[in-house]
Amino acid sequence: MWGGRFSRGPAAIMEEINASIDVDRRLWREDIEGSKAHAAMLAAAGVIGAEDARAIHDGLETIAGEIERGAFTFSKTLEDIHMNIEARLKTLIGEPAGRLHTARSRNDQVATDFRLWARRACDDIEAALRDLMTALAEKALAHAGDVMPGFTHLQTAQPITFGHHLMAYVEMFARDAGRIADARARMNECPLGAAALAGTSFPIDREMTAAALGFDRPCANSLDAVSARDFALELLAAASIAATHLSRLAEEIVLWTSPHFGFVKLSDAFSTGSSIMPQKRNPDAAELVRAKTGRITASLNNLLVVMKGLPLAYSKDMQEDKAATFEGVDALALAIAAMAGMARDLTPQPDAMAEAAGRGFSTATDIADWLVRVLNTPFRDAHHVTGAIVALADRKGVTLDALSLEEMRTVEPRLTEDIFTVLSPAASAASRTSHGGAAPDNVRAQATRWLDALTQQP
Amino acid sequence: MWGGRFSRGPAAIMEEINASIDVDRRLWREDIEGSKAHAAMLAAAGVIGAEDARAIHDGLETIAGEIERGAFTFSKTLEDIHMNIEARLKTLIGEPAGRLHTARSRNDQVATDFRLWARRACDDIEAALRDLMTALAEKALAHAGDVMPGFTHLQTAQPITFGHHLMAYVEMFARDAGRIADARARMNECPLGAAALAGTSFPIDREMTAAALGFDRPCANSLDAVSARDFALELLAAASIAATHLSRLAEEIVLWTSPHFGFVKLSDAFSTGSSIMPQKRNPDAAELVRAKTGRITASLNNLLVVMKGLPLAYSKDMQEDKAATFEGVDALALAIAAMAGMARDLTPQPDAMAEAAGRGFSTATDIADWLVRVLNTPFRDAHHVTGAIVALADRKGVTLDALSLEEMRTVEPRLTEDIFTVLSPAASAASRTSHGGAAPDNVRAQATRWLDALTQQP
Amino acid sequence: MWGGRFSRGPAAIMEEINASIDVDRRLWREDIEGSKAHAAMLAAAGVIGAEDARAIHDGLETIAGEIERGAFTFSKTLEDIHMNIEARLKTLIGEPAGRLHTARSRNDQVATDFRLWARRACDDIEAALRDLMTALAEKALAHAGDVMPGFTHLQTAQPITFGHHLMAYVEMFARDAGRIADARARMNECPLGAAALAGTSFPIDREMTAAALGFDRPCANSLDAVSARDFALELLAAASIAATHLSRLAEEIVLWTSPHFGFVKLSDAFSTGSSIMPQKRNPDAAELVRAKTGRITASLNNLLVVMKGLPLAYSKDMQEDKAATFEGVDALALAIAAMAGMARDLTPQPDAMAEAAGRGFSTATDIADWLVRVLNTPFRDAHHVTGAIVALADRKGVTLDALSLEEMRTVEPRLTEDIFTVLSPAASAASRTSHGGAAPDNVRAQATRWLDALTQQP
Amino acid sequence: MWGGRFSRGPAAIMEEINASIDVDRRLWREDIEGSKAHAAMLAAAGVIGAEDARAIHDGLETIAGEIERGAFTFSKTLEDIHMNIEARLKTLIGEPAGRLHTARSRNDQVATDFRLWARRACDDIEAALRDLMTALAEKALAHAGDVMPGFTHLQTAQPITFGHHLMAYVEMFARDAGRIADARARMNECPLGAAALAGTSFPIDREMTAAALGFDRPCANSLDAVSARDFALELLAAASIAATHLSRLAEEIVLWTSPHFGFVKLSDAFSTGSSIMPQKRNPDAAELVRAKTGRITASLNNLLVVMKGLPLAYSKDMQEDKAATFEGVDALALAIAAMAGMARDLTPQPDAMAEAAGRGFSTATDIADWLVRVLNTPFRDAHHVTGAIVALADRKGVTLDALSLEEMRTVEPRLTEDIFTVLSPAASAASRTSHGGAAPDNVRAQATRWLDALTQQP
Repeated sequence: MWGGRFSRGPAAIMEEINASIDVDRRLWREDIEGSKAHAAMLAAAGVIGAEDARAIHDGLETIAGEIERGAFTFSKTLEDIHMNIEARLKTLIGEPAGRLHTARSRNDQVATDFRLWARRACDDIEAALRDLMTALAEKALAHAGDVMPGFTHLQTAQPITFGHHLMAYVEMFARDAGRIADARARMNECPLGAAALAGTSFPIDREMTAAALGFDRPCANSLDAVSARDFALELLAAASIAATHLSRLAEEIVLWTSPHFGFVKLSDAFSTGSSIMPQKRNPDAAELVRAKTGRITASLNNLLVVMKGLPLAYSKDMQEDKAATFEGVDALALAIAAMAGMARDLTPQPDAMAEAAGRGFSTATDIADWLVRVLNTPFRDAHHVTGAIVALADRKGVTLDALSLEEMRTVEPRLTEDIFTVLSPAASAASRTSHGGAAPDNVRAQATRWLDALTQQP
Repeated sequence: MWGGRFSRGPAAIMEEINASIDVDRRLWREDIEGSKAHAAMLAAAGVIGAEDARAIHDGLETIAGEIERGAFTFSKTLEDIHMNIEARLKTLIGEPAGRLHTARSRNDQVATDFRLWARRACDDIEAALRDLMTALAEKALAHAGDVMPGFTHLQTAQPITFGHHLMAYVEMFARDAGRIADARARMNECPLGAAALAGTSFPIDREMTAAALGFDRPCANSLDAVSARDFALELLAAASIAATHLSRLAEEIVLWTSPHFGFVKLSDAFSTGSSIMPQKRNPDAAELVRAKTGRITASLNNLLVVMKGLPLAYSKDMQEDKAATFEGVDALALAIAAMAGMARDLTPQPDAMAEAAGRGFSTATDIADWLVRVLNTPFRDAHHVTGAIVALADRKGVTLDALSLEEMRTVEPRLTEDIFTVLSPAASAASRTSHGGAAPDNVRAQATRWLDALTQQP
Repeated sequence: MWGGRFSRGPAAIMEEINASIDVDRRLWREDIEGSKAHAAMLAAAGVIGAEDARAIHDGLETIAGEIERGAFTFSKTLEDIHMNIEARLKTLIGEPAGRLHTARSRNDQVATDFRLWARRACDDIEAALRDLMTALAEKALAHAGDVMPGFTHLQTAQPITFGHHLMAYVEMFARDAGRIADARARMNECPLGAAALAGTSFPIDREMTAAALGFDRPCANSLDAVSARDFALELLAAASIAATHLSRLAEEIVLWTSPHFGFVKLSDAFSTGSSIMPQKRNPDAAELVRAKTGRITASLNNLLVVMKGLPLAYSKDMQEDKAATFEGVDALALAIAAMAGMARDLTPQPDAMAEAAGRGFSTATDIADWLVRVLNTPFRDAHHVTGAIVALADRKGVTLDALSLEEMRTVEPRLTEDIFTVLSPAASAASRTSHGGAAPDNVRAQATRWLDALTQQP
Repeated sequence: MWGGRFSRGPAAIMEEINASIDVDRRLWREDIEGSKAHAAMLAAAGVIGAEDARAIHDGLETIAGEIERGAFTFSKTLEDIHMNIEARLKTLIGEPAGRLHTARSRNDQVATDFRLWARRACDDIEAALRDLMTALAEKALAHAGDVMPGFTHLQTAQPITFGHHLMAYVEMFARDAGRIADARARMNECPLGAAALAGTSFPIDREMTAAALGFDRPCANSLDAVSARDFALELLAAASIAATHLSRLAEEIVLWTSPHFGFVKLSDAFSTGSSIMPQKRNPDAAELVRAKTGRITASLNNLLVVMKGLPLAYSKDMQEDKAATFEGVDALALAIAAMAGMARDLTPQPDAMAEAAGRGFSTATDIADWLVRVLNTPFRDAHHVTGAIVALADRKGVTLDALSLEEMRTVEPRLTEDIFTVLSPAASAASRTSHGGAAPDNVRAQATRWLDALTQQP
């Protein structure tokens, strides 16, 4: 399987394990950006001449153009994106290219490029999460009053509304976005100028390159600057937590689209059919989103294992950081996009949800609360009274609101007609008016508040 | 092995898998705190009477006292800490105990208790990290000028100082503390009042309980309030990242105390000896800190797997959250304490470090930088000239500063006496004056800045 | 939280991180067993006298008795189970105790004890899996003909039987047992006599101790003997794979007991109710089994991280191996016992399953197969014809067997009465007579074969 | 970053998440092999005609040729390798192509292809491990007598030999190969004929296809056949355990090539230099092998998370199985090849190792053993006498064999000249003649035994 490849000997094996260009070519934009800032600073600090700086700048722009239009030849022999660009620059502008690497080493260069990429990934993930939140909040607003069963243990517990359920996810994804934002803020320090590991004796201006690249400040310790990868770990950790949220919603979509629930329908855009069973719709996209949790948390696991026990400052092990991070972040981006697509695509089936909300005597706690509120029954006693009423309905094979007052009074004589105001699922949901509760008005307010906030955010 | 236990039948198995009291009894303080706040709010809102509230409050105080002095009997039959306390309250105060659970359910109660615990864990971990940073910064300040080799690939690269090396870790642990602080801020919302999942129809005041318990606000969605565990995941993720930092420093202590390095000595307090080889000191504490990475990242992994694909709102799977979180956080707290202890305990061996810093022609890059700075040689050319000088010293079997000017001039005739100012490891380290560089004055300033900040923090 | 404990200083921290007695006291039986075998061998080899050997043997028996009846005082100062027992032996028999450790070190002693424990764990897990398989096969035999829907993507796909479904798990758990058996066979080599790491110059007889302890042979390399922990990793890996199988069945039990499926009922023994909703049964045990996947795979993860990059031969990191392995294996044993309990406890609901099996035109592929078999229609064409018939039934709102022959002939005129023999779910399941197919007779034969095999196994 | 791609709308997102052709095209060989076997069986069973079977066979051969010579156009719209090949077959041979899928579904087809691939991966990994073992055993044989320090806690413990150290890894990799072989044996059952999940009513001969594809037998349960992925998990688990072994040896190579050890040298083939420090050799390949542990254990983690809690029979989540498995197995194959290359490439430095072996009073236990053996001192007392002698040498600053007999007799008057036979590292190593001990003759015998066995294996 691999024998053929490796039997070519040590050189083939070493190239295979050592060269990273297939992975890190993706950093070309950041590498050129970083080099331009470095050259400009070197010139400003008088370390290189203005003419050399200009030649470097123009050469890098030329290379950027070549890569963008697919005219650049990447070479595996040159190992990585940094050497590929440096070698091309040498060809293009000659001797000045040799001055670009003054007061810089591969170690701080790689760390800078990777942080720039990770920062951009944060921005994009945050935007994607905001889009998903918008999709969910819009759907929640439209279905703020559609009653559905709330579950515990996948058993019917209490009536809620579909909008209320979706808004729970808006809260989760908002915290995910917050974690991404925090990661971005913490990583936004510039390693450039840390050189190999010890800093440099050249009179460089690290504040200048940091500012030019949009960093808040330079890293404060040169060893830390080149050996830190916690910024990537934090990004992957935030991604992993977001993935658990996505997997929970994905699981629910799989359940809801099952004929055993029938709560929502997905169009052909996000499900696949069968030529033989035209009515069958497999929620493939939801299942794949659920599965991506595996890849995303594995990426985090990968990098945690790689970094475990590595002495400072740089070990080649750290070259594995990029593949892990790219894979985890790509999978998250795809999963969010697919989930936002499904959130917009799905059509709730209010009748099926309402019917299910009425099963399982889901308003039992409402009876108990009524007993406490109206008759001042202690809570635990109210539970027992309610249990007896439920058992009565169960024996008769009817729902709670189908019992007559007389029947209920055999259990608790002090019950009044007023009890019927809490027995239907819709009434139950509507009564949950406490802060954050399931009442449709609550849901509408919460959804509207979020949609406003999402519109106003940058 | 387990057969005996399980052969007692279903009841024994179910008790074993279902009861959580052995784990969650640790939440007794938070449970009582939460119940007191809830009772006070119920009374203020007129849901229960003032006298009942007072009875509940006093009963809970009695229970707290009993637990504190070891006079409370925990029962496995009562499953968890919440039922243990509730049952005892019923015994102590009778009927009013039955009113405490009004407008509350086990779901929001557990979520509240666990958040209170996690918040306290954040505070304690942050304090522990600050203590570790202080220990490291103090040691760094005392050894800001002790030259040691900086390594890449565990090969001698460039001279740095011991203080500079330690300050890299101060930066890492500062970011770890930042992650903990962010996690704390994000989790500081109160689930209490979300009830089972849907909120409640009682006129409760969630702002009041949130404030009483030190939360910033109530959770905004009742489903999310009871089903969210990302606060624990975020805490464990921050712990896992901190664990990689601890493992890196632990690995270095293992290396440094090996006779092959001999850079530091640990006292008996943090190492163990052998009756037969009295001079041998095993760095057991460092190895155990390194190993704790396994447990800590496993705790994160555990909870990520538990939460994957769980539908809302509450599933019993989530009962596993506490064991995982307690284990991960306990291991982190212990590892930080052990590391702070070692940081204070360790005695650097400046001679061994200085000797090692001179090996491997570690000032080669200083020659190259001199060529660039003084002779304006392009950087890449300067590398080749330097390589030839190093090869010359290697052939002669001497260090770079033992070459004569004449010998070096056979490679590059323009070299002057001035080159000797950069050839010693100490001079090299001292020349790294760029922002964040290894120069002793940099290190002293950075250490002092941190010690000031650490003193001023709350 | 921990501050109090750690503020007692280095000694408190070191004891906390270093002492393992709370974990490894569980190895007391194996430690005594190993020491008895070692002493007997030393005497046989003439390394110690017969009288000393007898004193050691008797002293160890005394200690075993003390521990068994709870009369042994474990001391944290003595760190681990090995020193606790050795110190007690010294007290009991004096000088001869000092000869027990001849030609042995803590390293090979610990490795031997831990292998003995792991081997016993393999035996117990295998027995537990066989019990689970028996429970499943018995239930499968009893319900070999109960038709239920087979799902793909949680969508109804084709009719199968409940017995067929359960037998799929019997196959899975049989492979799990096979993995455990393979792990046991591979680990069954004796480290005793490897001493610290290099073997010994005493004329010991490692074959003798290996045989006395039931090992197949001594480990072939002394370094490997003390540094290997892949036996524990392999056990945890097999446990993790078994956990995925348990989690899948647990997930299905959660689904099946949900009112949306209603395929099975669990008694109070393995579910919990609610005082307020007496008909509600939460499948707590199934959820907890599902959750244990987290702990079990985390244990594997833990030990993989601990062992990553450890140089030979022994590092203190490896002390963490036991906690990880105990936790993972305990959780697996508990999950298997709970699952076997549920397998015996659950009551299938044939009517609900049969009704569900008829939904979703689940016999559509049977029509297509009939077209291929009887009319020689190419498979892909048969799919299209079938799709049209299904669409017809869908439009009419009826099941496939409720269509008349005339109606179906509007799509394919060559259809005959014979088509009705494949249209019912029961007929469909019965027709799957291919090797391993869902036909009830297949299921009965497979279940019987397994029950015979399980009875005959040791 | 991804926005551009996803803003093309649902179709673009769905194609991105759903299509697997970029990953599973690698299964083309297995897919064609499986289809050929299925067609031949269908013809033999009379389900399709002989002519159709021949057309299918020839068409598949044509496709194989096209793919092999790069003339096949893979289409993402056709989603996966199976549809790509099926569509091409239809173009090539028309109607008979439609008969190939009789009594088969995508589910059993995919499972069969993937098992065939995994089985081949087992064979290749096993061969690679044998090659690595050969390389290590050859090097061990050549250096069976080169004395080096054996370490515990990275502290010098006892003298061993380089060959003995390497043979420890031969034992480890042998067990890894054993795990792979066990996985191969267990997975070698054929899913083909399980169809979608329920088996089929066609009179197929599953024994025939199983035999044709080299399987030991057909899978016994059709649901299990399509839903099982434990074969991939077991392969990844074996890979993960092997990865810990590789990481340990890689860590040692990093240590040994460090100037602080200097035990071995790597050539340019497996290390990289620096233009500026020509003598510096970075052990890049070893570091990358160490890092691959991250990816390999992450692959296992990935698939464990994907499979957790999936109901039977097929969920789309399982499509993620292949990327995870390919990545983990590829990384392992590469790491083994790189390690075998390094094992052959590395040049031990006997002088440096011997010098280190003499440090740290490494023969202290030999004195103690001599006291026990010759003077019959109890072991624990012998330890204290030895400790006093070591302390004496330590105070004098000399090695143990530089003490005079008189000096040693101040501690223990009964010492004789004979003690000098055990004081040198070489004598110490040579004395470890117990089974598996470090004595050079042991090592030579063990290495020779393994080299014979490795030559004889298939």
